[in-house]
Amino acid sequence: MGMTMTQKILAAHAGLDKVSAGQLIEVNLDLVLGNDVTAPVAIKEMEKLKKKGIFDKDKIALVPDHFTPNKDIKSAQNCKCMRDFAKEYDITHYFEIGEMGIEHALLPEKGLVVAGDVVIGADSHTCTYGALGAFSTGVGSTDMAAGMATGKAWFKVPSALKFILKGKPAKWVSGKDIILHIIGMIGVDGARYQSMEFVGDGIAHLSMDDRFTIANMAIEAGAKNGIFSVDDVTIQYMKEHSSKPYTIYEADEDAEYEQVYEIELDKIRPTVAFPHLPENTRTIDEVGDIKIDQVVIGSCTNGRLDDLRAAARVLEGKKVAKGVRVIIFPATQKIYLQALEEGLIATFIKAGAVVSTPTCGPCLGGHMGVLAAGERAVSTTNRNFVGRMGHVDSEVYLASPAVAAASAVTGKISSPEELGL
Amino acid sequence: MGMTMTQKILAAHAGLDKVSAGQLIEVNLDLVLGNDVTAPVAIKEMEKLKKKGIFDKDKIALVPDHFTPNKDIKSAQNCKCMRDFAKEYDITHYFEIGEMGIEHALLPEKGLVVAGDVVIGADSHTCTYGALGAFSTGVGSTDMAAGMATGKAWFKVPSALKFILKGKPAKWVSGKDIILHIIGMIGVDGARYQSMEFVGDGIAHLSMDDRFTIANMAIEAGAKNGIFSVDDVTIQYMKEHSSKPYTIYEADEDAEYEQVYEIELDKIRPTVAFPHLPENTRTIDEVGDIKIDQVVIGSCTNGRLDDLRAAARVLEGKKVAKGVRVIIFPATQKIYLQALEEGLIATFIKAGAVVSTPTCGPCLGGHMGVLAAGERAVSTTNRNFVGRMGHVDSEVYLASPAVAAASAVTGKISSPEELGL
Repeated sequence: MGMTMTQKILAAHAGLDKVSAGQLIEVNLDLVLGNDVTAPVAIKEMEKLKKKGIFDKDKIALVPDHFTPNKDIKSAQNCKCMRDFAKEYDITHYFEIGEMGIEHALLPEKGLVVAGDVVIGADSHTCTYGALGAFSTGVGSTDMAAGMATGKAWFKVPSALKFILKGKPAKWVSGKDIILHIIGMIGVDGARYQSMEFVGDGIAHLSMDDRFTIANMAIEAGAKNGIFSVDDVTIQYMKEHSSKPYTIYEADEDAEYEQVYEIELDKIRPTVAFPHLPENTRTIDEVGDIKIDQVVIGSCTNGRLDDLRAAARVLEGKKVAKGVRVIIFPATQKIYLQALEEGLIATFIKAGAVVSTPTCGPCLGGHMGVLAAGERAVSTTNRNFVGRMGHVDSEVYLASPAVAAASAVTGKISSPEELGL
Repeated sequence: MGMTMTQKILAAHAGLDKVSAGQLIEVNLDLVLGNDVTAPVAIKEMEKLKKKGIFDKDKIALVPDHFTPNKDIKSAQNCKCMRDFAKEYDITHYFEIGEMGIEHALLPEKGLVVAGDVVIGADSHTCTYGALGAFSTGVGSTDMAAGMATGKAWFKVPSALKFILKGKPAKWVSGKDIILHIIGMIGVDGARYQSMEFVGDGIAHLSMDDRFTIANMAIEAGAKNGIFSVDDVTIQYMKEHSSKPYTIYEADEDAEYEQVYEIELDKIRPTVAFPHLPENTRTIDEVGDIKIDQVVIGSCTNGRLDDLRAAARVLEGKKVAKGVRVIIFPATQKIYLQALEEGLIATFIKAGAVVSTPTCGPCLGGHMGVLAAGERAVSTTNRNFVGRMGHVDSEVYLASPAVAAASAVTGKISSPEELGL
């Protein structure tokens, strides 16, 4: 029996010719990531373990993105802890406010992850980099500490699900709709501790930004990782962003998959996940009349340039509905500048949205758009658990940037099609 | 004995021909202001008093600017309280995220204050509108509640200090330097419960934005209000922003002033207030070597277009010093858009600053840039009390946007002159 893409990457990083699902292996890490929530915990863990030194100052990335610019004294102290650590160990990839962005948009943009890499990050959405054909997964702060100290991590080799993407998505159907459709189909534990491997001719119709969105939400189906087969689009992206050498791993012909799904992209409609689970999906046609108070466009899921372009196409020349707060978060400083130069930011401000600095902010109820009791948000983020964006009596509806933008204009959950677009 | 500008406005609003310093009078209000910190308290106060109804739905302004986009659940609930109240009483001037800004920049911009008005606001920097030749002052939430219910307020008529501004300020000397210079001279209680009345030929050399900055900080000298004589610049501003009728009140020739100060503007140097009081001023030449961690440019004091232009002139083509966080807050959505269209926002982002939504944010240690222990900020805000921007062991140095921007580039408190500008 052959190996999946994921298994091949893990085997190569464990120095083994062959690994099988369920096997415990120790792998060499290409990158260890932490943010202002998790890195301080890991740093204290290293101190407790009296671990001195780090495995490689070029292979640790520290990104203060969750509560920055600092929300309060506690978050300021956490960022200071991480900053001091970065200075002490001369860590190359520490990103300060002004040169940073949301970690999962930033690392690919900075060229720190390429195909064939093994990356762990103390953040559940570390799975995002699977879009580049890398193995990347979220870990706890203790594993991050061990990873920073040793450059290694233990894994149980995951089994896998194969998703064969076919055909071309319709207008206004994006990566977000595809992954919400899939999570709706298999459920939030549908891929528990498994790899979600995305292949098929449909991939060619997905931009890198679409792929990042899809891989990003693999964790919302419980997956260990999500991973895309590498094509010309991936290679072009890596050429533009990275000087690191990459390795393309393809699944063996006889690789074992627990399940194979064929997804016809042209049949997918804009999709919304209702409270309080990403699996509670409905197509835009089944949504009904859901009035909203807030729209959030951004995050590690949907704060990239394609996302902002889609939102701007909808908001161009229009006005946000009276009483609706619209908050837009470009995911990185670079994306912000690109959006500015393309006129997208002006479109947003003229429409009556506010544009924030890059931050995780409201996605996790952190800051910059926390919900009050009884309020409803349409959000391009990744989770809509009870109280995720604020009060336990608030509601989050997950959607694409296009649907979020259309909803901003109408004041209720809407498709761009309703606006004649 | 004649009346000061302030006394004349108060007399007219009390229906009296003459008032004198120390007299208790009841005046009619043209505008009552509250924000997301103070309005919810006032609203609860009204409920306690079983006050039903408001005096005039067109003469109340409610601006959610302090902890917005909502920092946390508590601030979200406070904003909801204010929003619900605005809806219940059909208050005309409630400003939602996306159409708003920092109250003291927003109200003049929206034309809600003109010369001769009496304005109270449950925020200490309500004195800002004195730049337009209005009497405006900060009150507590209980007075705001009474003001919303009755349209009246009691005042003890203030005595006054006269500041005769003479000549033209040098390059890189702005309204901020002038008011810091004055506070340094008279101290933080130098104008306690007095009017600071600004007159003289030097006013002609000050933009409206400079005047707003100066009036804004009258409270930092303990003043009841600050007020400027009205000239063509004021009239032009009002024409561009307001359709309200205005009345120009000039001080009587024989008006009584407790003290008269002549301020030679051409002698003023860029000025910085050291921790922990606005009166601890030094000229830029006396500053010494003060390394900084953060720069904040914005606020009700210095977040207007002139301020952003000055900062951009300094930052154009330059890079923020390594390790310094620079956070820029346009004071309103309109200012943001103007700054964007003038290319200032692009300059900031390219320099490595982040640009926030309009919010009071870090000025009061609220959010979006709170300081950790041991950190130092140069800030264009108005207060540098112990712990004002975060941890009690942090330090705030107050300065102009030009000095703040220059400091961002060098990493220590600097004048634009040091950059050869």
